[in-house]
Amino acid sequence: MTNGLTALVIGGTRGIGLGLVEALLADPAYDRVIAAGRTVGGHAGLDRLTTTHGSRCDRLHLDLADEASIEAAATELQARAPALQLLINTAGQLHGDGLQPERRLADVRPERLLASYAINAVGPILVAKHFQRLLAHGERAVLATLSARVGSIGDNRLGGWYAYRAAKAAQNQLMHTAAIELARRARELIVVSLHPGTVETGLSAPFRGNVAAERLFTPAFAAERLLAVIAGLDRESSGRFYAWDGSEIPW
Amino acid sequence: MTNGLTALVIGGTRGIGLGLVEALLADPAYDRVIAAGRTVGGHAGLDRLTTTHGSRCDRLHLDLADEASIEAAATELQARAPALQLLINTAGQLHGDGLQPERRLADVRPERLLASYAINAVGPILVAKHFQRLLAHGERAVLATLSARVGSIGDNRLGGWYAYRAAKAAQNQLMHTAAIELARRARELIVVSLHPGTVETGLSAPFRGNVAAERLFTPAFAAERLLAVIAGLDRESSGRFYAWDGSEIPW
Repeated sequence: MTNGLTALVIGGTRGIGLGLVEALLADPAYDRVIAAGRTVGGHAGLDRLTTTHGSRCDRLHLDLADEASIEAAATELQARAPALQLLINTAGQLHGDGLQPERRLADVRPERLLASYAINAVGPILVAKHFQRLLAHGERAVLATLSARVGSIGDNRLGGWYAYRAAKAAQNQLMHTAAIELARRARELIVVSLHPGTVETGLSAPFRGNVAAERLFTPAFAAERLLAVIAGLDRESSGRFYAWDGSEIPW
Repeated sequence: MTNGLTALVIGGTRGIGLGLVEALLADPAYDRVIAAGRTVGGHAGLDRLTTTHGSRCDRLHLDLADEASIEAAATELQARAPALQLLINTAGQLHGDGLQPERRLADVRPERLLASYAINAVGPILVAKHFQRLLAHGERAVLATLSARVGSIGDNRLGGWYAYRAAKAAQNQLMHTAAIELARRARELIVVSLHPGTVETGLSAPFRGNVAAERLFTPAFAAERLLAVIAGLDRESSGRFYAWDGSEIPW
């Protein structure tokens, strides 16, 4: 399995990220799929994939909240694999650790706005900053970051969820800005933001009461759809925001 | 001068904010114009307006970086004036205090992303949170926040300026989200984001080398144009983003 592709999935230890790792391992074009997360041990789903796929399924420690950890992960990965053809960052946070989507303006708290921004917007652009050198190798590569439709300003008709909506809008702006810069020196690198739909994960668990069953995806289905969208991207796609069905989402 | 209008200009001690205070004082419809800022004394331009207009020109201490200060300012203002017909928040920061617009991805620093977010996005939504009760009085009122065209994701073709662009995109999302919520219980309250153009102020000083003279506005001209845009707003305008010439800016 020489000259195969290498993929890194940040947040690949569970949820949509784990679904992506599993789907990528099922694709013989990839000879190495690396799951990165804050903790790389003690994940039953990932352990099962390692049992099945052996060294094709790799792991990497990366804490999105710590720039030194992101930089160290990029250096460590470069020592293992000279180039990366696909990086998908699935990590994000809607609730937990003191975060709770606001119902109304009166619920807005500065410390929650800042905490959501740190994980949902700052983390992703630091990944782009430190992993750009592994992705800019003159052949096709994709840097995809999971965003969310609720981060769209133009598509926002319900209100609420201030901190998460704002952090995702900022994340979209940051990745769009990175796409403009990277297009100048790495023409074959495609940078996109992706909306996975509503997926049965811990992130959506408290909020999917109103989601019809046929619109609530398994991580495996979301992963399959996202990889289909990624496969169809070209240079003109860079800097844009796509949903799981390939449709473009307004900013 | 009873039944006159009351306006509050946050950041009204200098730059575009001071221009707005001066223009509002020239309008006899306003019987009180309040300039709010971190420091309310020691501003020659504002002192001159006080000399000319006496008690019609008022001052209020408000530090956008401190929620307690914003809340206290709202309480203090309510004691002075029962209702506000216009609140314009002009405060924002592009450089200084450790902030410096990034030329490229390699210049991105998490602490600068967070500092820019705190002042440019968190501050404005906390103003909406605490001043909404002075603006929701059943008659026409406008809550306008200065944004910047560089905060538009769709209009971004140059790249760079990561922290400021992201914070302004988030600010636009936050004000749009507040507009949706406030439309439900305060139908006459209009919430907008405004782009003032490139104005001769401390904010633009290091960056206007490439701006043609006829596109570099004085604070007085920007203030006049922004007040004309505000005068033309109606309910349908709420939640939108307008430039100084009244044109709508994409998200």
